Amino acid sequence: MQAVDFNSDMGEGFGPWTIGDGVDSELMAFISSANIATGFHAGDPGTMRRTVERAKQLGVAIGAHPGFRDMVGFGRRHINAPAQELVDDILYQLGALREIARAQGVSLQHIKPHGALYMHLARDEEAARLLVENLQILEPTLLLYCMPNSVIWRIAKELGQPVVREFYADREYDLSGSIVFTRHVRALDPKTVAARVVRACQSGVVRTVEGEDLSIEFDSICLHSDTPGALALVEATRTALNEAGIKVVAGSPQKR
Amino acid sequence: MQAVDFNSDMGEGFGPWTIGDGVDSELMAFISSANIATGFHAGDPGTMRRTVERAKQLGVAIGAHPGFRDMVGFGRRHINAPAQELVDDILYQLGALREIARAQGVSLQHIKPHGALYMHLARDEEAARLLVENLQILEPTLLLYCMPNSVIWRIAKELGQPVVREFYADREYDLSGSIVFTRHVRALDPKTVAARVVRACQSGVVRTVEGEDLSIEFDSICLHSDTPGALALVEATRTALNEAGIKVVAGSPQKR
Amino acid sequence: MQAVDFNSDMGEGFGPWTIGDGVDSELMAFISSANIATGFHAGDPGTMRRTVERAKQLGVAIGAHPGFRDMVGFGRRHINAPAQELVDDILYQLGALREIARAQGVSLQHIKPHGALYMHLARDEEAARLLVENLQILEPTLLLYCMPNSVIWRIAKELGQPVVREFYADREYDLSGSIVFTRHVRALDPKTVAARVVRACQSGVVRTVEGEDLSIEFDSICLHSDTPGALALVEATRTALNEAGIKVVAGSPQKR
Amino acid sequence: MQAVDFNSDMGEGFGPWTIGDGVDSELMAFISSANIATGFHAGDPGTMRRTVERAKQLGVAIGAHPGFRDMVGFGRRHINAPAQELVDDILYQLGALREIARAQGVSLQHIKPHGALYMHLARDEEAARLLVENLQILEPTLLLYCMPNSVIWRIAKELGQPVVREFYADREYDLSGSIVFTRHVRALDPKTVAARVVRACQSGVVRTVEGEDLSIEFDSICLHSDTPGALALVEATRTALNEAGIKVVAGSPQKR
Repeated sequence: MQAVDFNSDMGEGFGPWTIGDGVDSELMAFISSANIATGFHAGDPGTMRRTVERAKQLGVAIGAHPGFRDMVGFGRRHINAPAQELVDDILYQLGALREIARAQGVSLQHIKPHGALYMHLARDEEAARLLVENLQILEPTLLLYCMPNSVIWRIAKELGQPVVREFYADREYDLSGSIVFTRHVRALDPKTVAARVVRACQSGVVRTVEGEDLSIEFDSICLHSDTPGALALVEATRTALNEAGIKVVAGSPQKR
Repeated sequence: MQAVDFNSDMGEGFGPWTIGDGVDSELMAFISSANIATGFHAGDPGTMRRTVERAKQLGVAIGAHPGFRDMVGFGRRHINAPAQELVDDILYQLGALREIARAQGVSLQHIKPHGALYMHLARDEEAARLLVENLQILEPTLLLYCMPNSVIWRIAKELGQPVVREFYADREYDLSGSIVFTRHVRALDPKTVAARVVRACQSGVVRTVEGEDLSIEFDSICLHSDTPGALALVEATRTALNEAGIKVVAGSPQKR
Repeated sequence: MQAVDFNSDMGEGFGPWTIGDGVDSELMAFISSANIATGFHAGDPGTMRRTVERAKQLGVAIGAHPGFRDMVGFGRRHINAPAQELVDDILYQLGALREIARAQGVSLQHIKPHGALYMHLARDEEAARLLVENLQILEPTLLLYCMPNSVIWRIAKELGQPVVREFYADREYDLSGSIVFTRHVRALDPKTVAARVVRACQSGVVRTVEGEDLSIEFDSICLHSDTPGALALVEATRTALNEAGIKVVAGSPQKR
Repeated sequence: MQAVDFNSDMGEGFGPWTIGDGVDSELMAFISSANIATGFHAGDPGTMRRTVERAKQLGVAIGAHPGFRDMVGFGRRHINAPAQELVDDILYQLGALREIARAQGVSLQHIKPHGALYMHLARDEEAARLLVENLQILEPTLLLYCMPNSVIWRIAKELGQPVVREFYADREYDLSGSIVFTRHVRALDPKTVAARVVRACQSGVVRTVEGEDLSIEFDSICLHSDTPGALALVEATRTALNEAGIKVVAGSPQKR
């Protein structure tokens, strides 16, 4: 792999609150794609605008990061909602960011659902299909970030929506290829994370919780900005990628 | 006046709740422009989609109806917020509706702020100017519904955003030309309201609370869907306009 | 059965919105216990106060009706939340109503969780136990409304919290004794509902969706105020109970 | 002055977010009274419970800290609401905390409105009177924290509700005795703040923005936990009070 996208969730504060260490502005200097929270699990219109402005300043591509309507649970609690309701919620959020970005002269590169909604769409055929069908109407070139081999990944391939497959730098994998989501993530060592990412890029494998290697394919590295010590993790990862001669470039491999 | 626009607020339910008599679907058959609530004072993504679908079915033009972020107060309580914050909120809502409408193949005709936000922009130079400046960037042909001679009306004229001046069929005027907002509106007589509208269209005057006539200029009649008995009021008004030979046509006089 | 409690959900509006036909005030004249929405799925502080005032005026007993934090879904969507989080939410809502009622000199008779939270507590051992343990600390005589033979019913019996077993007049039962929840309930015939209730009181049976009779035990009849035509249903039921010589009295059989 | 209360706002996070430096737990060791956010401007039921538990552990007295219903504005934006609506909101929040505290065996010492609501009650006769009248019914011994000589202070004195007058350690005063509220507070020097507090305790004066001394009377020192560097400010102030021989004791002077 000679180039890879590097994405992180940005703008996940709300009103007076910032998430994690509140270092979005610094962190954004090390990534190529920013997933901007769109107000249902985090984010508010002012935070969205400021995040777009910062991304524009740094030449970072942006995408919508819609979540379940659940501020207090930060979109990490599954809500048992019909597919149409969820897709309505996603379109609402997508358009909200698109308009705020357009006022700054910025276009959207991608969409990446958040947290429990990301997981729901990775499994639920009906919601995933309805979403992709709507994206085909709205913007058939909008990149869809998702887990390789998930339900939504398969449907996007089927209907022709371009996908960006993610590798989670700060989450554990098991041998089934699933990532182990937790509400509270412990601090990670920057060098370990950076080495794990470089190994994944160069060798296409990751060590699982079972202790064995798993083969993985991906187009983008994801590192969460609310992981404790995220700034150090992102900086160390970017530095290690540079030293390994792997370019960090926004978007899908087809576009590179 | 040979033709006039007829607008009403639509989609002002939320989740399980409908507003007023819950007759949006019937009422929409009598108007030419629907102001669709965009989720901050009322409305939710599903209601927005269904309202767009109904408007499309009937050939009714649609616009965004953004409000203060205040569900419990229905956007009727003034919130002391900076201009930038309000404009961020408005763009967020505008984009949300635009996306949902675009998924149905429908474009926005206009924007009309709601309740206390409408009144705020009628008076606050900084917020009104910032909003119109942003509309000039986003869509310089989007119609802006406002009160004639208000601050936002003057700024829109100055910057070139097309305006639609409103006449409030179900609100009292005073001699200063202001409308008297109340939280609870009493039931009105359909024939009286219809006659008042036809008189306004034909003679350009309205009887004020002081008992004297006031000269008014307008391009659109507004009748609120949450006024008790709104359906009968709207139907009677539409019938009276038809009988008076006044066509009901969406949008601005310049476009007719 | 010589006497039975008759409960209904009250105060399930929010801000400008009323639920169902908006007939809480009239409907309350026919019941003995009001479950007052406490602001998470419906209800707001002003609506709560006015509902308490009306109940006081009519001598109707009141209870807290806490739900999932989900306005747009009206508390009918299951949210995957830890037991402690749910119990914190319930105590918050319980206290809010208790204070508002106390300012009117009214005490709480009961607590009845709403919608998806009611169903969750009927099945989830951990959440049900934690809630009942907290009720034992806070008010060991507070009546807990629940489905007979549910998990929370069993735990309440075990720990000593008094229960009121419900019969759902406007919901279908299956032979397992479960009620069939739906998001949209169709209109029901008042006479049929009333006859079904009287039969349940006199014979202890209800006809199931499978067409066979199911034996049921209960202390209270529940009729939902957001069922279309609720006022007619409640009035017909109350009249039929009167004619059958069955008194409508608040609370548990032990207290009668 | 031989003893003084020392209060700070606690539990002003929401869901995944913490306020300021997220140091409530450490900061609480240096104060005598905690104002616990009650869910309308900040705070959620889980955060409230954990904050009560920490206060109990440290022997810190607690009070309700209700605000305007405005998360995104953190209760710092004035909302134009009727007095009855505001008092309903306050009672709702007060009861919510009371119940959560009672489940931990803790009673409330006080109530202190937050931000723009605090300022509103300092000026608005109708809302202030209605609130104090309700407190007289609910708990005539509950301490009311307020600014000396404000409207609510005067009404509380008149009706017999005990008051605790505050001195704002981290806010500027002008010669009228008003504090200058700002949305963003700059970092302050711990030694300067500590010296200012000790001087106020010993000499009853504070240097105003105009550069002259103002005489002040107070029973409690307030230091905001969301002021940048709040932990250092609180620790320095507590140390300086100790060194000056001034005891830090919860509540009103009448109770000491």
